Amino acid sequence: MNREDIIAVAAGERKADLVVKGAKALDVFTREWVTADVAVCGGIIAGVGEYSGKEEINGEGRYLVPTYYDAHLHFESAAVRPSEYLKLTVPRGVTAYNADPHEIANVCGDGGIAFMARDVRDIPADVRFMMPSCVPATPEDSSGATLTAADAVKCKYGLGLFGLGEMMNVPGVLGRDPDVMAKLNAFDIIDGHAPGLTGKALCAYAAAGVMTDHECTTAAEAEERMRRGMYVIIREGSQAKDLKKLLPAVGGKNFSRFMFCTDDRNLEDVSARGTIDNCVRLAVGCGMDAASAATMASYNACAAYGIKRKGAIAPGYAADFFLTRDPVGELPEAVYFGGRRVAENGKALFETHPADCSAFLSTVRLAPFGEDAFTFPFRKSMPVIEVAPGTLVTKLGSADSPDGLDLMCCMERHRASGEIGHAYVRGFCIGGGAIAQTVGHDSHNVTVIGDNARDMALAVSALGEGGGFAVAAGGEIKGKVSLAIAGLMSDKSAAEALAERKKLRAALGGLKHAEGIEPFMLLSFLSLTVIPEAKLNTKGLYDVTRGKYVYNG
Amino acid sequence: MNREDIIAVAAGERKADLVVKGAKALDVFTREWVTADVAVCGGIIAGVGEYSGKEEINGEGRYLVPTYYDAHLHFESAAVRPSEYLKLTVPRGVTAYNADPHEIANVCGDGGIAFMARDVRDIPADVRFMMPSCVPATPEDSSGATLTAADAVKCKYGLGLFGLGEMMNVPGVLGRDPDVMAKLNAFDIIDGHAPGLTGKALCAYAAAGVMTDHECTTAAEAEERMRRGMYVIIREGSQAKDLKKLLPAVGGKNFSRFMFCTDDRNLEDVSARGTIDNCVRLAVGCGMDAASAATMASYNACAAYGIKRKGAIAPGYAADFFLTRDPVGELPEAVYFGGRRVAENGKALFETHPADCSAFLSTVRLAPFGEDAFTFPFRKSMPVIEVAPGTLVTKLGSADSPDGLDLMCCMERHRASGEIGHAYVRGFCIGGGAIAQTVGHDSHNVTVIGDNARDMALAVSALGEGGGFAVAAGGEIKGKVSLAIAGLMSDKSAAEALAERKKLRAALGGLKHAEGIEPFMLLSFLSLTVIPEAKLNTKGLYDVTRGKYVYNG
Repeated sequence: MNREDIIAVAAGERKADLVVKGAKALDVFTREWVTADVAVCGGIIAGVGEYSGKEEINGEGRYLVPTYYDAHLHFESAAVRPSEYLKLTVPRGVTAYNADPHEIANVCGDGGIAFMARDVRDIPADVRFMMPSCVPATPEDSSGATLTAADAVKCKYGLGLFGLGEMMNVPGVLGRDPDVMAKLNAFDIIDGHAPGLTGKALCAYAAAGVMTDHECTTAAEAEERMRRGMYVIIREGSQAKDLKKLLPAVGGKNFSRFMFCTDDRNLEDVSARGTIDNCVRLAVGCGMDAASAATMASYNACAAYGIKRKGAIAPGYAADFFLTRDPVGELPEAVYFGGRRVAENGKALFETHPADCSAFLSTVRLAPFGEDAFTFPFRKSMPVIEVAPGTLVTKLGSADSPDGLDLMCCMERHRASGEIGHAYVRGFCIGGGAIAQTVGHDSHNVTVIGDNARDMALAVSALGEGGGFAVAAGGEIKGKVSLAIAGLMSDKSAAEALAERKKLRAALGGLKHAEGIEPFMLLSFLSLTVIPEAKLNTKGLYDVTRGKYVYNG
Repeated sequence: MNREDIIAVAAGERKADLVVKGAKALDVFTREWVTADVAVCGGIIAGVGEYSGKEEINGEGRYLVPTYYDAHLHFESAAVRPSEYLKLTVPRGVTAYNADPHEIANVCGDGGIAFMARDVRDIPADVRFMMPSCVPATPEDSSGATLTAADAVKCKYGLGLFGLGEMMNVPGVLGRDPDVMAKLNAFDIIDGHAPGLTGKALCAYAAAGVMTDHECTTAAEAEERMRRGMYVIIREGSQAKDLKKLLPAVGGKNFSRFMFCTDDRNLEDVSARGTIDNCVRLAVGCGMDAASAATMASYNACAAYGIKRKGAIAPGYAADFFLTRDPVGELPEAVYFGGRRVAENGKALFETHPADCSAFLSTVRLAPFGEDAFTFPFRKSMPVIEVAPGTLVTKLGSADSPDGLDLMCCMERHRASGEIGHAYVRGFCIGGGAIAQTVGHDSHNVTVIGDNARDMALAVSALGEGGGFAVAAGGEIKGKVSLAIAGLMSDKSAAEALAERKKLRAALGGLKHAEGIEPFMLLSFLSLTVIPEAKLNTKGLYDVTRGKYVYNG
């Protein structure tokens, strides 16, 4: 910034570049709406009071709100590249992101992280990339890459990473695993991920330097973290919805310890409901006043992460704000970033410069397979995965008959090793076909579920070298979504990706499945061996609770 | 810190170095007292809960409080060297300081700053030195040194300075003075000093990057700064007492924007009443709960200045705390810094390593003078300085007769230039003698006030090469305090300095002066040309409001 110019504008000696006249501006320091002119110079708010500018925007009857901060998310969860994602969310007034490229890192390693960083180039948003802390997610995983502490340091400086992403390896922290310790030592800002952790173990996790947690699901969990000096990031994803449960923990005195994140939101949600703007609406729906909700969504996150001169409408702060007729409305009239109008009425006004993704377009490397790969013996009393509606937590059950069970396989897809895990699943109830996909947390191997080997083989084949989602039934491919980038993200526009996904869901309509489950989402978590209780990875059916394999083919 | 050890202790696998058992610990995040064991390892708080340690301290019936932070002070105001000052205040639980060595810098330049920094070496406290922003304080001043922006940068890196000290040159900021701009550009942390500034000018000052102000004297001033994104440091000095007036501005939602400082406290105050501990007592006396007052005094300042992992009793935070039977009591039972017991029952347990001060012992360099220097003509209707009890603000008056007026001189003492300013003063009412001193803000020239030239000359002579305070009456030196270091600070212990000062005050007892004024303190501000309205510097009687000289001899 040119300090001299800003001072001259603030002092009223010179016209501002831009003045928003007479809007009700959010004062995040008192959580009040205060009618004033807001003068901008050189991308910085120079003054709040009475000003005139070269350009003047009528703010009467409008609210002026500092733009919002998504304190933890994986762009990959929306299955579009970051530049496409941001075209949807910046117009909603969300211009700050702590993005953990954990998914692509598990497929493509540090090259994937670099791709994500390049993809957001020149986009009017503060995208702060975090170092994925656990690649692979667990020692049991067959991921596409391994990132050590040395890699983390290289990425930190080479890519200008902001901090260490959610440290999911809680046992590694508590057990002082040397690589985990070296990662913690390398970063000052460290995000957490510690569902259910309590008491001394939570103290140890906090004392290790972890400063946030976004995995609280009860107010009591949130409160314990807050009292131990951690910040609580209230998550409202597509699947994990914690906001209503956590809001009661937010009080008058501890208010500054809370902020919002989305973690994982699918494209439909991002497109139709938004992200942090949606959190603000939900919080207000729960009874919080709009000024407080908007402050949590903006200033609180900046303050927690030590980001100065962002997140408030005050002199010297970045001119990142949006103008809206309704502070809990859907799409702001105008979004400004660094004093520049970057969106209006939901439409992005900025150009993107998508990064070259050619190196990440053929990441699905399967060993040759036939239909026989998808048949495996049923034995009486064999262990099975039991799924249920509305949860990612599974049970380890047993079955006396194959009736009502689906076949599931998890196929190593990074090195064509031919490694494949098999299990029966109860409760998914796929009927007359199969679903295959390359989105499978956290290693993103190919998972396929179905009731017959022919459709399963067909669905897997349909994924091709690029990957994505495929549905087969009756010996035919019924639908496909291509996620050409790392098998995780579409290389198309968000609108095209949405249309493809809509068609796929229509195709899925022809296929039976249990009520209350979202098949693609649920399947993507059935290989994640950090969520209880029974999961399938490329090595077999894994009992998460006891930490051992209980079946494979 | 050794992260592994701290984790092991927090997890309860290993005994802590130290556990404070069962005290009511302050939770700064909720502002509650919570009974718990607090386990320390390697100087860091590892856990809060139930712990055992190699050393265990009984905390039952006691309060455990994070140590306090004096967010802005000049050690020189107590007229003892920093190492002596800290022996008085660390035992009171004040272990963090933003110290602006503005006074010594005006006498000795960057060498004086370096001396102050060396003097606190190895003392168990976080003393963060700030770069004095205005040396000399104004272009009108005849100071002992000039520190430019280039000097500031040299000091910043050479001495590891924390930020830019109170930017008093408000016109320089508003007028974009190049040297002021360069100083602002050189630092991220910038303290302010802007009494009375409001509206657009305040916006300009805040937009320039100034993040704090400790000069508010009304709740309305405090509130305006707070709304403009600045932090308000509530000052309670020996002379400037703002706490009671500002506390009403502290609300539930803006709480985090306030903290405490002492700015200028004399040795008697520091010794008898303490510093930030005294602010906490006063705040509680005004009706604030002790937990909130202690939080303002500790965590709020750390958070405002972006100091991580300090100021709270929580895992991963520095083990800087004190144990006391009464959270608003006078002297804690024990003070810990970095987990080490550094004071008990008011007594410092640490050694100091005072810096070599030999280079700063002969700083009073006056041109030869006789009694005639202290006689100057009276003219009818001449302008005079009018002082009043309880304020440093003076009026520019006029007099028709010399009756009831005192003589005052301000003598350049850094380069023996012989420059001397003269004025008459109304309301001081020295009778039968004179007071001379080398403490005279901000350039610390010799000021002398009296009712006869002989005693004035005698008092000035008595200051010698070292400087200090001297009282003469009836042709005799009645008392003297030596401030051998730069003419500002005693080179003796705090106890000896106190005894000397007590004797001086007794000597002063023989001398008449107006009721309600503290003669040495008031005189020390009569040369400060930034406080309205009439001041005397070495060039003559200065009308601060109109910025011009109105009389000299």
